[in-house]
Amino acid sequence: MIILVMNAGSSSLKYQLYNIESEAVLAVGRVERIGMEDSILTHEPTGGIEVNRVSEILDHNEAVRKVIDMLTHREHGVMSSISEINAVGHRVVHGGESFKQSTLVTGEVKQEIRRLFDLAPLHNPPAMMGITAVELNLPGVPQVVVFDTAFHQSMPKESFLYPIPMVLYRRHKIRRYGFHGTSHDYVSKQAAKVLGRPLEELKLVTCHIGNGASCAAIMEGKTLDTSMGLTPLEGLMMGTRSGDLDPAIVPFTMNKEELTLNEVNSMLNKHSGLLAISGISSDMREIVQAMSEGDSHAKLAFDMYTYRLRKYIGAYAAAMDGIDAIIFTAGVGENSWPVRKAVCEKLTFLGIEFDEERNMEKSKEARYITKDGSRTSVLVVPTNEELLIARDTFEIVKSS
Amino acid sequence: MIILVMNAGSSSLKYQLYNIESEAVLAVGRVERIGMEDSILTHEPTGGIEVNRVSEILDHNEAVRKVIDMLTHREHGVMSSISEINAVGHRVVHGGESFKQSTLVTGEVKQEIRRLFDLAPLHNPPAMMGITAVELNLPGVPQVVVFDTAFHQSMPKESFLYPIPMVLYRRHKIRRYGFHGTSHDYVSKQAAKVLGRPLEELKLVTCHIGNGASCAAIMEGKTLDTSMGLTPLEGLMMGTRSGDLDPAIVPFTMNKEELTLNEVNSMLNKHSGLLAISGISSDMREIVQAMSEGDSHAKLAFDMYTYRLRKYIGAYAAAMDGIDAIIFTAGVGENSWPVRKAVCEKLTFLGIEFDEERNMEKSKEARYITKDGSRTSVLVVPTNEELLIARDTFEIVKSS
Repeated sequence: MIILVMNAGSSSLKYQLYNIESEAVLAVGRVERIGMEDSILTHEPTGGIEVNRVSEILDHNEAVRKVIDMLTHREHGVMSSISEINAVGHRVVHGGESFKQSTLVTGEVKQEIRRLFDLAPLHNPPAMMGITAVELNLPGVPQVVVFDTAFHQSMPKESFLYPIPMVLYRRHKIRRYGFHGTSHDYVSKQAAKVLGRPLEELKLVTCHIGNGASCAAIMEGKTLDTSMGLTPLEGLMMGTRSGDLDPAIVPFTMNKEELTLNEVNSMLNKHSGLLAISGISSDMREIVQAMSEGDSHAKLAFDMYTYRLRKYIGAYAAAMDGIDAIIFTAGVGENSWPVRKAVCEKLTFLGIEFDEERNMEKSKEARYITKDGSRTSVLVVPTNEELLIARDTFEIVKSS
Repeated sequence: MIILVMNAGSSSLKYQLYNIESEAVLAVGRVERIGMEDSILTHEPTGGIEVNRVSEILDHNEAVRKVIDMLTHREHGVMSSISEINAVGHRVVHGGESFKQSTLVTGEVKQEIRRLFDLAPLHNPPAMMGITAVELNLPGVPQVVVFDTAFHQSMPKESFLYPIPMVLYRRHKIRRYGFHGTSHDYVSKQAAKVLGRPLEELKLVTCHIGNGASCAAIMEGKTLDTSMGLTPLEGLMMGTRSGDLDPAIVPFTMNKEELTLNEVNSMLNKHSGLLAISGISSDMREIVQAMSEGDSHAKLAFDMYTYRLRKYIGAYAAAMDGIDAIIFTAGVGENSWPVRKAVCEKLTFLGIEFDEERNMEKSKEARYITKDGSRTSVLVVPTNEELLIARDTFEIVKSS
């Protein structure tokens, strides 16, 4: 079965084409700057060369058409006809309380995703545009939606409710949802395999740290707690997002700096985090580079980032009364050995015997970075959200 | 030396009179509903009977005069003349970055406290009124100010800075200050005595949980981190305060409910916490009572409260790479055995062997609630902020 995986942003569309039985990627690509005169389509067939096409792409509908054209292109394509695509899987950021798992797209499902626009005004509308574009361009092909929030719907009330008037939950569904669920789900399952133990027996802390970052307490294969909340702003310090703050800072700053609601949101989401403290970059690679050259602001940003992550690991150890393993994944988690070192070296109280050499090895494989015999393990597990979306799509379409 | 300790709120004034050499309390009392027609002065000389006087008390100046009248009252007083008062010590909530310790009141000090009104608009102005009232009523008597924030000034930058634009720190001094410093300081010193080890060797988590609640990571006798922040809103769930939230909830709620800055502040400070979730009370005793009668909202409030505290203990264990002891103090911490039980029972991974019987014993003394031989200890240590203010006042006046 051939499955197209799509991840639509406000002005972008990423895709991967899978042969799901072999889990082989046939092609990957992305459309950027949708709606601009100089939109770019980047396409790479597996084993072939990367193609770049600049043209005016009006909207997501046109973007999907161009992607399909490219997938069936005489020279760069990987299929002879679009009819070979058996199903399409979409990443959708917010599934609210309605979606506890991936699901087939129906009229009702679309209506519910539209109802959730309010909770994810920047993320859900483009996903919806992607779904509509596929309906127009691949009529009759079944579509599946995979939600970033769904895996975390297992949280108990004491984790997901905030200590604020209950009317805000009833009226506006203000609660913790958590995000990156697909990734936390995937790496916790992978970790169980590496550890050679049933997931149902394990207490894991999964750290998905990329541009956005969240960690989760995974107990018996289910999310007990996670650091992102109503929105992806809460929790860890990120590239440009603040993460946790005294909530009183919001009105205090709005008052002092005469900011509107949009301005304070923008400040906390786009101009905070590593970028704000370092004054250099939101990219951990550049922070580490600058730090190695003696930049004290970069050092401070790095210290705050790793300190705050270390505290979350401790908090989740307390939430589960101990942990079996910590898992690092996503851009920073998979690639930044200095971050992993700074976080883990001071967790000896959890029974972690960190292995500096293993930590510095480069590999695309899931692996230990603790010493053999360490009571608590630390693993690096590459994430693959697209593959999980493809798998979910396959399972749902197959059985529907 | 006779020392009067004062704690002024916006419409209240609490006091204790000490013979500091013997640390004996000579009298305690409070004025409530200052500025109302039915202000109440409650006064109790040690070994005597409690007196209540209802009258119109215009302001803090008049309140101080009434207190002094009572302290020298023929029948209920404990001194023959006000000239016996050698010094006055004041609790001041916010000392900003200027005050790293208690200090003698001078013109300059008063100016600086006024400059800090901005950071603590509800708390610092009444303290200032108290100071002025003492100047008028006890001219020439030295005064000392003891700050709630001072003890926490030892925090390193990675603890006290927020990951938001640095200009907000430079321009408005937005950073973590922490509060209840006098109490965290006092109970950590007491704990070292009970543990029979030098404070400089210890890693402690002190939990000051009363109506307001904060915990602190105390390493080598100094605050490494604490849960309250720029304001006393951040951190733990409290009686009526939310504690930690997704910061995005603030603009989200303001938008949805059309709230002003004052209204959202008021909601998070006065209508959240235990009160919001239980729908019953902000008082832990009433929550526990309702819970024992099967009230599910009270149970949820209790679970959230203890779960969030447990996570902080874990976070601070990670911050210090382990802990030697956890200390419970203040109203809830000293008296609520169910809270201590719920928090500590699931911390076996820290090497805590909880002792249920010891936990349920009632005592006014500092004591263990873990079993003998427990690798990590849990203590209940009654706090005494007034005594610490009296001691600081004594030391400073003696050596000035």
